[in-house]
Amino acid sequence: MNFNEWTRAVLARTEAALEARLPSAEVEPGRLHDAMRYTTLGGGKRVRPLLVHAAGLLTGATPEALDAAGAAIEMIHVYSLVHDDMPAMDDDSMRRGKPTVHVQYDEATALLVGDALQSQAFITLSDAPVPAARKAALLRELAYASGSLGMAGGQAIDLASVGIALDRPSLEKMHRMKTGALLRAAVFMGALCGDEAPESLDAAAGVAAQTRAQAGGAAVAEAIDAATLAAALERYSAAVGLAFQVVDDILDVTADSATLGKTAGKDEKDNKPTYVSLLGLDEARKLAKQLQADAHAALAPFGDRAERLAQLADLVVERAN
Amino acid sequence: MNFNEWTRAVLARTEAALEARLPSAEVEPGRLHDAMRYTTLGGGKRVRPLLVHAAGLLTGATPEALDAAGAAIEMIHVYSLVHDDMPAMDDDSMRRGKPTVHVQYDEATALLVGDALQSQAFITLSDAPVPAARKAALLRELAYASGSLGMAGGQAIDLASVGIALDRPSLEKMHRMKTGALLRAAVFMGALCGDEAPESLDAAAGVAAQTRAQAGGAAVAEAIDAATLAAALERYSAAVGLAFQVVDDILDVTADSATLGKTAGKDEKDNKPTYVSLLGLDEARKLAKQLQADAHAALAPFGDRAERLAQLADLVVERAN
Repeated sequence: MNFNEWTRAVLARTEAALEARLPSAEVEPGRLHDAMRYTTLGGGKRVRPLLVHAAGLLTGATPEALDAAGAAIEMIHVYSLVHDDMPAMDDDSMRRGKPTVHVQYDEATALLVGDALQSQAFITLSDAPVPAARKAALLRELAYASGSLGMAGGQAIDLASVGIALDRPSLEKMHRMKTGALLRAAVFMGALCGDEAPESLDAAAGVAAQTRAQAGGAAVAEAIDAATLAAALERYSAAVGLAFQVVDDILDVTADSATLGKTAGKDEKDNKPTYVSLLGLDEARKLAKQLQADAHAALAPFGDRAERLAQLADLVVERAN
Repeated sequence: MNFNEWTRAVLARTEAALEARLPSAEVEPGRLHDAMRYTTLGGGKRVRPLLVHAAGLLTGATPEALDAAGAAIEMIHVYSLVHDDMPAMDDDSMRRGKPTVHVQYDEATALLVGDALQSQAFITLSDAPVPAARKAALLRELAYASGSLGMAGGQAIDLASVGIALDRPSLEKMHRMKTGALLRAAVFMGALCGDEAPESLDAAAGVAAQTRAQAGGAAVAEAIDAATLAAALERYSAAVGLAFQVVDDILDVTADSATLGKTAGKDEKDNKPTYVSLLGLDEARKLAKQLQADAHAALAPFGDRAERLAQLADLVVERAN
């Protein structure tokens, strides 16, 4: 199976998984369910579910477990778009090529759609076909990545920074939280779905360091393997997460709204700090290429098993929308 | 320890648990964390954490596990208040005796505070000091109770019903989702925190029926115990949940804003259907008393262990705000 075939297969699985895990519009409250389906189904690049499935190949995860993790993380992503588009935030009227939820329905519905999609993500995790210990680990990843130290916090910093000339470290911190945390969670959650993953990848690096310091025994090899996995995924996620944002900023000035499926040129209009405004277009493109190379380098320990992750790094950097 | 002393002790534990589980306002984004703490700490009746702790007495749960479950469910409740108070929804300016979040801060912050508090609830569960299997069961209860088939869905039905003369079954369904689901989750989560609880109370009734149908063995007694527990908690929760709403409706017309800590008389002004508008004040009071008696009756199988749950049913019906 080549990369395009694999991508199409994962997108089809993801669509089916989302479809199955969102309540029918026939179920009361029908308008809310209809709006949840309207904004979630039939669109989007599904970058996070693709990362989940690609990372799952490293640890022998089942496609069914990855479907659940991918659907959950995509619901979190979609909820954040619905809320970000609302008049109190970015006030955008177009998303994924169609009217945003508060335009198509109304503001109260948009608010509740976001709220209910966040809950639905955790419902989806709670029903994931994985042992309880893995479910608890997945819960931890998704909850931390979504909250005030992750995605929601990054959005708060982003809002507070409009019209302020953020320096590069501040801009990076904001994006690391706003989009990076969820992309990182996608990679970690995919790996955590597999039987070959340690139960907590977050703890792995710390434990390995401690174990090595104490010398000794068979536990060392295993802990170092877990630490290697965690460190490599951390490095890969950081590179891909940042590249994703840099390319977003580039596309905002180089692509048109029809290609993007959302309003182009909005960052400049809103006076938002971007990598393009900070570095210029050429340097921003150079940075994206460097990050792509770093993502590839991070995957070296895994050999062929990481082929899809490498190809996804290419997709993130070379995409047209 | 009498009931008042027990209540004060649980309230103090709950405040400490929430305080410890909300990021400091010193941590970036400071304004978001400040607003999360502003709206969560130092107020509220904490009915849900009280129910969690009382139900935990049935199954020998540790106070530490109950603190985590109680804090998580209170965060969900508080997030829903923050979003419900926003201009797109109920547009209320006063809550728990202070300005609502969108008034004190701004609308974008209120939106993000609600979003981040929902995530924080699941972060709190993910860190709860219980075995992974119980964590997964708690996750399931909280996520389903919060989502479109629970609290968020009830709010959607409530919004759609303004100015419409709902009949009593429709009104009950709305409240069963909007407030009942989370009160029920409080009771079930409290019980699930204990070692003596079956791992899934939801499944217990079904499993017991099946086991009995197949006859046989020692498993029957255990399954029936789980079923008895689940059925009794279901009946208690239904009675207390409905009583809570009936009394809320009564207080909306009989108490003043200062006592309530929120705007009194708002339901009538907003032309919202209530038990008072449907039944009249006297019949609404009679209904609350009947539900109180039914809650007590549901607890009969547990004897003294259910004393706090019985007293909480009294508190819900006899409260002044």
